[in-house]
Amino acid sequence: MKTVDGGVTAPKGFKAAGVHAGIKKSGKKDMALIYSEAPCRTAGVFTTNVVKAAPVKWDQKVVLESPFAQAVVVNSGVANACTGKEGYDCCTEMAAETGKALGIPKEAVLVASTGVIGAQLPMDAIRSGISKMAPILGCKRLDARLAAEAIMTTDTKPKEIAVEVELGGKTAVVSGMGKGSGMIHPNMATMLCFLTTDACIAREMLQKALSADVKDTFNMISVDGDTSTNDSVVLLANGMAGNPEITEEGEDYRLFCEALHEVMTTLSKMIAGDGEGATCLFEVKVSGAPDKEAARTLAKAVVTSSLTKAAVFGRDANWGRILCALGYSGVSFDPEKVDIWLLSRAGKLKIVENGTAAGYEEEEATRILSEEEVTAIADVGAGDFSATAWGCDLTLDYVKINADYRS
Amino acid sequence: MKTVDGGVTAPKGFKAAGVHAGIKKSGKKDMALIYSEAPCRTAGVFTTNVVKAAPVKWDQKVVLESPFAQAVVVNSGVANACTGKEGYDCCTEMAAETGKALGIPKEAVLVASTGVIGAQLPMDAIRSGISKMAPILGCKRLDARLAAEAIMTTDTKPKEIAVEVELGGKTAVVSGMGKGSGMIHPNMATMLCFLTTDACIAREMLQKALSADVKDTFNMISVDGDTSTNDSVVLLANGMAGNPEITEEGEDYRLFCEALHEVMTTLSKMIAGDGEGATCLFEVKVSGAPDKEAARTLAKAVVTSSLTKAAVFGRDANWGRILCALGYSGVSFDPEKVDIWLLSRAGKLKIVENGTAAGYEEEEATRILSEEEVTAIADVGAGDFSATAWGCDLTLDYVKINADYRS
Repeated sequence: MKTVDGGVTAPKGFKAAGVHAGIKKSGKKDMALIYSEAPCRTAGVFTTNVVKAAPVKWDQKVVLESPFAQAVVVNSGVANACTGKEGYDCCTEMAAETGKALGIPKEAVLVASTGVIGAQLPMDAIRSGISKMAPILGCKRLDARLAAEAIMTTDTKPKEIAVEVELGGKTAVVSGMGKGSGMIHPNMATMLCFLTTDACIAREMLQKALSADVKDTFNMISVDGDTSTNDSVVLLANGMAGNPEITEEGEDYRLFCEALHEVMTTLSKMIAGDGEGATCLFEVKVSGAPDKEAARTLAKAVVTSSLTKAAVFGRDANWGRILCALGYSGVSFDPEKVDIWLLSRAGKLKIVENGTAAGYEEEEATRILSEEEVTAIADVGAGDFSATAWGCDLTLDYVKINADYRS
Repeated sequence: MKTVDGGVTAPKGFKAAGVHAGIKKSGKKDMALIYSEAPCRTAGVFTTNVVKAAPVKWDQKVVLESPFAQAVVVNSGVANACTGKEGYDCCTEMAAETGKALGIPKEAVLVASTGVIGAQLPMDAIRSGISKMAPILGCKRLDARLAAEAIMTTDTKPKEIAVEVELGGKTAVVSGMGKGSGMIHPNMATMLCFLTTDACIAREMLQKALSADVKDTFNMISVDGDTSTNDSVVLLANGMAGNPEITEEGEDYRLFCEALHEVMTTLSKMIAGDGEGATCLFEVKVSGAPDKEAARTLAKAVVTSSLTKAAVFGRDANWGRILCALGYSGVSFDPEKVDIWLLSRAGKLKIVENGTAAGYEEEEATRILSEEEVTAIADVGAGDFSATAWGCDLTLDYVKINADYRS
């Protein structure tokens, strides 16, 4: 497996486009299209929020009921959430218009939206965007980049990754693009990720691989603890790599999962590190947990603790907050067996030993915390399981971005 | 039942004191003492955090095992949490010194600490504080106020309340003082509340009343979602009102619970509204829930949502965030049956009807949100149960206070 320069067009047969359709008043790109020359097997995971945006409901139907999918159409600017029947009709029309432009059934088109909640889609702009994008779909590096830019809201950087993997003697590519916390019109963060691969893999194995990996990647990110109404991760596999179809667990499935994990982990870290107002990526590794689920719960408790996040912003090794968050996570452990370290490119430092302060210099801790990626490692001494979660610091800019009056 | 001007010394037989013992470098008061002339039946509820501060462990033992308690000694400045065996020994000594000064066994002394985690108590200052306080204990209004001030950290106001209630032909008083989110040395918020009453009530009924009411009062507050290692609520009843002992459920128990509820609700709102950096009290009332626990879960989800709290700070009626928080709370309901209102002294406004925007003016919503106490009311249309939670807005000052380097 190796990382290559590329985005969603890196696997064979995938094309993309990104344009300004007129939804965002800023004039920035606001629509993206992904298209596969060959029909794709499809897997998806979606928000667990009871309040689901119209495109989430549509995509769940496509993933479950359509024999294949061949395109994804995305708009940023309006989330099409809490929009009732009219919103669902708009979503259906968006799929139908895209299908017409590409000569495929609307049931083969996945739809995603991100932006303000409660507003209806501006359908004139949506239709204009679709007719602009269909003729300019391309498979070049730049085409993928334009699509990755078009799904951004307050993200500061586009987020793309591609890896190559050998499957049954053939080279396959797994790639993806994602967006994180952001808004045009202050509203909630939406995480969207679109993954493409030319690997040949049975549908149930594709969904199995995605569902398993999401627990250790996207579900381990937190920017602010608010689960969006629009979160979606979809994975399209068009089989054009020509590898023998993966139909069961085995070496090729393992290799595919490894490549998928690399893509999903990288996008997860990119999204967490570019959280609203963030100045750094904050990684939390927990070991010594009594089981895997406990390890995930402990790591997520620390990464979502407002007090810990504010301390990271202040480059303050306020370990009491980390220990406190572990303590209220709901997992049982002996506080007097906990060790905690800080880690970054600047070094590694033990700050807690057996639940109380290890002898360390505050200046050294601050130096380690002053990097763009910082890690807290906690061993709770209660077992053999570990997990990693990713988040970011809680900054003045986070509050400014989210308190701004919508105007 | 009526509210009277007073604090922990309002019930018969209770005395208090508050002094600067030398723990806080600022010179502000940092030790408080409450004493009852008669032995008290005692009830307590404590943090559910696995990491428990030394005084929490001590108090749990006193409440469970001691036949009575007669004093509470409190220090602010150092939390005595994550301090190992040395910390527990300091806590025991604090109880013993207080007992010696008052002529009561150390097992009759409750102890509480709030402040920085991981540091040991400065025992010279603690001893000096105890010997200062014992001779000046008083039952005047001012004595209670000095004690309420001495337990403050970054609280901006002391928090006291007293109510009178008729029990079996006698006038009894239930009163309390509390502190909320704050720190001297940036660290986690600790909620401490000390409740006193001269009502005569059996020990098991006292604990029952406290445990039941805490679910709807203190457990419904959130400043930042971080559950402290030191949270403690203790209730002392010395029986000096002379009412017939309350030994079972009945009219007197109901009246006592009503008075206790008034005291605990008032302190809860005082603590939430004075949360770190807060500019307003944010109250969330949920109705139409399928059961009581679901109602509490829904209300707490909204009051702890960072995005909602930031919107309140911006006086922005960003109802999508409220609906989103209800949606990810884990409670099942039909989003298309949800109605939401905003309420404050400035008026009441329906902003969501059947899950989508009600026709309202943003200016009107902002006017309502610009008060010092604002309420969001959500009816989720799934049953007959309701609950109320209290929090505050998420402000630039919250981040500043908590990102400040400890120095």
